[in-house]
Amino acid sequence: MAGDKLCLAIDASGKLNAVSADDVKHFAEAGIRVLADSEIGPPHNADMFGRYAGDARVALAPTSTAQVSQVLSYCNERQIGVVVQGGNTGVPGGALCQRGEVLLCLSDMKKVRHVDPVAGVLVADAGCVLADLDDHVQQLGYIMPLDLGSRRRCMIGGNVSTSAGGLRYLRYGSMHGNVLGVEAVLPDGRILDALFTLKKDTSGYDVKQLFIGAEGTLGVVTAVAIALAPKPQATQLAVLGLGAFDKIEQAFVRARQGLGEILSAFEFWDRRCDEIVVESMHYPSLLKSAHEFYVLIETRGSLMRHDAEKMSAFLDALHADGLVDESCVLSAPDAMDAAWMFRSNMAAAHARRGCMYVYDFSLPSQHKPSLLGAVKGHLSSLGLYGAADSPVLDVTIFGHIGDDNIHLQVIAREFGGAVEAAIEPWIYSWVGSHGGSVAAEHGLGAHKGQFLKYSKSAAVIDTMKDLKRLLDPRGIMNPGKHICQA
Amino acid sequence: MAGDKLCLAIDASGKLNAVSADDVKHFAEAGIRVLADSEIGPPHNADMFGRYAGDARVALAPTSTAQVSQVLSYCNERQIGVVVQGGNTGVPGGALCQRGEVLLCLSDMKKVRHVDPVAGVLVADAGCVLADLDDHVQQLGYIMPLDLGSRRRCMIGGNVSTSAGGLRYLRYGSMHGNVLGVEAVLPDGRILDALFTLKKDTSGYDVKQLFIGAEGTLGVVTAVAIALAPKPQATQLAVLGLGAFDKIEQAFVRARQGLGEILSAFEFWDRRCDEIVVESMHYPSLLKSAHEFYVLIETRGSLMRHDAEKMSAFLDALHADGLVDESCVLSAPDAMDAAWMFRSNMAAAHARRGCMYVYDFSLPSQHKPSLLGAVKGHLSSLGLYGAADSPVLDVTIFGHIGDDNIHLQVIAREFGGAVEAAIEPWIYSWVGSHGGSVAAEHGLGAHKGQFLKYSKSAAVIDTMKDLKRLLDPRGIMNPGKHICQA
Repeated sequence: MAGDKLCLAIDASGKLNAVSADDVKHFAEAGIRVLADSEIGPPHNADMFGRYAGDARVALAPTSTAQVSQVLSYCNERQIGVVVQGGNTGVPGGALCQRGEVLLCLSDMKKVRHVDPVAGVLVADAGCVLADLDDHVQQLGYIMPLDLGSRRRCMIGGNVSTSAGGLRYLRYGSMHGNVLGVEAVLPDGRILDALFTLKKDTSGYDVKQLFIGAEGTLGVVTAVAIALAPKPQATQLAVLGLGAFDKIEQAFVRARQGLGEILSAFEFWDRRCDEIVVESMHYPSLLKSAHEFYVLIETRGSLMRHDAEKMSAFLDALHADGLVDESCVLSAPDAMDAAWMFRSNMAAAHARRGCMYVYDFSLPSQHKPSLLGAVKGHLSSLGLYGAADSPVLDVTIFGHIGDDNIHLQVIAREFGGAVEAAIEPWIYSWVGSHGGSVAAEHGLGAHKGQFLKYSKSAAVIDTMKDLKRLLDPRGIMNPGKHICQA
Repeated sequence: MAGDKLCLAIDASGKLNAVSADDVKHFAEAGIRVLADSEIGPPHNADMFGRYAGDARVALAPTSTAQVSQVLSYCNERQIGVVVQGGNTGVPGGALCQRGEVLLCLSDMKKVRHVDPVAGVLVADAGCVLADLDDHVQQLGYIMPLDLGSRRRCMIGGNVSTSAGGLRYLRYGSMHGNVLGVEAVLPDGRILDALFTLKKDTSGYDVKQLFIGAEGTLGVVTAVAIALAPKPQATQLAVLGLGAFDKIEQAFVRARQGLGEILSAFEFWDRRCDEIVVESMHYPSLLKSAHEFYVLIETRGSLMRHDAEKMSAFLDALHADGLVDESCVLSAPDAMDAAWMFRSNMAAAHARRGCMYVYDFSLPSQHKPSLLGAVKGHLSSLGLYGAADSPVLDVTIFGHIGDDNIHLQVIAREFGGAVEAAIEPWIYSWVGSHGGSVAAEHGLGAHKGQFLKYSKSAAVIDTMKDLKRLLDPRGIMNPGKHICQA
């Protein structure tokens, strides 16, 4: 930043101080790279879908854990807010400055520290890009145990800090299981070396878990040790067209039996999602006919001949029992890439269609089928949806059926106003009262903390607040977001 | 207990109070079952291997979360220590009273609360026995995602509280990944309803993680929600005889490639382990010849014909490359049961041989081969091992190679004395300095907290202590154990 600009660093509680020109001078003199004004543009001050705006005017790019420690120690002492940013691919605005905090960009911390080729464990700096890490470990016969649509931009520190889920959670599981160790800098600058690299450890409380999904509110994750998955020898996809939501769940139960250990993804989307991707992205639809619902199944195994036989038997049984109306199997790399591209760009396609409210819920099996109808009914009853000139253009769902995780999109002509007032907090209340989570894999970010009460008990929220106060007593980390709103 | 007996409830800090006859009367009047003296015998006051003795004289068996809450609220108010006990199958004495605390037995809390057959999720009271839960969910096409030698006695609340690992961790992963929710009673009696049942949740800090592996030091786990694994359709075992430790790791890397997604266990033991099981348990050895090392491999898949073909190709390649000297494949249920019995009773067989010091370490790949020789060399150099009349009879290793987890046994003629002084803390220091964990899956229990410093940094230990103070400010939960010793 230019030396004479000052940020108005005021958090919700009014206790944080403004960053002064002297502070910036201090960082620069300490050898910490201060981003030039020209570098702090939309990549650092806007979310992917344009719902949140950031106001960062001071951004630092440390190159080491020691530098992160210096910054935090200094900011804690002076009670200056700090927002941590990795690839800035988060959906709910958690990595954006909104109160003039210092933005801490971790993109210059991108060293692979170590790979154990026998145990299958990677240790990497927080700023390593997920796809780069995957490329790196593939040469050694492994893959990263997670995959996201934003793989080419998101960073492993952010993946851990948001407890990222994604496309193959069904197979490889949660970051809480796969992350073996974390190196974090506490708000007071102390370096917490919990960078354990072994699979089993029951020596005391698993303190690294605190940082998995904390969205930068308890400290800065500077390095990660993660258990890798063996690289599959054979991959195939199947695309299904189905006539009703309940058939998706029946097909899923069948897939878990018939495809068993080779099942690696089970994604679904509805008819309107399919149309929006075709319209907005100009991709061809993956099936010949139109269907009420689509499913994308992936298998990853060690022998294609076996996997193809299992897939064939599975699909034959689905067709024989009338669960599926059309299907195709893809095994050519280009065709599989195209199918994943179709699925991965679903949110981006919606964002091109209009102003996107994107929600990310977990729901119990019995309530998943009702969500879409409930939202459409609610908006229709308020006169906001259903006519050619309605303020809401589309309501769609897609997601990860095996993870109980549904993404709901409401596409409006504009943000705010009657539409927003109609959806929130109504939608969070609906999800909470049906036993769901208001944030399945996107996190709380900039404004969902206030809706936490719909899905978490008071004792749980109190414990979260206690943890925040314990680790960040001055409230400098990602102030005003996440649990601060609850 | 008889009403006139008093416990000397004195914790390490001297702050806890003795349980009085009035207290016992209070519990009884509140409708909480007080165990009779005759019921508090060795099952509650001794560990499995006879190293630790318990002194519980007041034991309560609540039947509900509300009763647990009543007990804790009362004990917290009066600063009376509380030790929680499930199946009492823990190795390091963590579930035994040693300072006259109230023993809280959860064996009367054994209801299965709910199973979601589509999502594959179980919700159960803490006192449910692991094997009973496995039997229950198998009828619905699932299995529990963990298995332990003590499956017929250990309870799910204890499995969570000790972050149990066990025999199929390699395939199904950690409790930190598989446990979806926990209901816990905090030391002040508040019920923490974090009994979430869905696979994905990023709404705030994952507070349930605190209780996974806390060994009853932060509160009482009263119910658990856990993600089940699909029941395999085909299971087979292979037993291998190998000439050297490094061949085990080479065979493991090959298994992860060739058996890939069907690999579900990879256990090993050394020659002396094999002899001790044969001698102590009178089981027949699993192979025809004697070998320096043995490996037990299990596959679990969805089609036996495919799995058998993969196993056959895998073993042929091992033989062709000289990695293995003898092998056999088992698929008959009786033969597989006998092989698992052989492996599961390894520790029990050692305990019959003499006084067993059992250690449970994680070690990085490059240091695993050195452990056995280092211990034998150390004991020999002190004149404690190697001769016919040495005080140490045997030093052996076995364990879970894919999890970095080695169990080390030192069998002595008696507990204590020069042998104990020679091993501890030397062995913990050796493991810590070689990048290992002093407690891979058994936990810290009654006396390993003091050795935590060998494998955890000061900042991590300080954070653990902060968490203990935050959740249990009066120090009533499992006093003097675990982190209290660090």
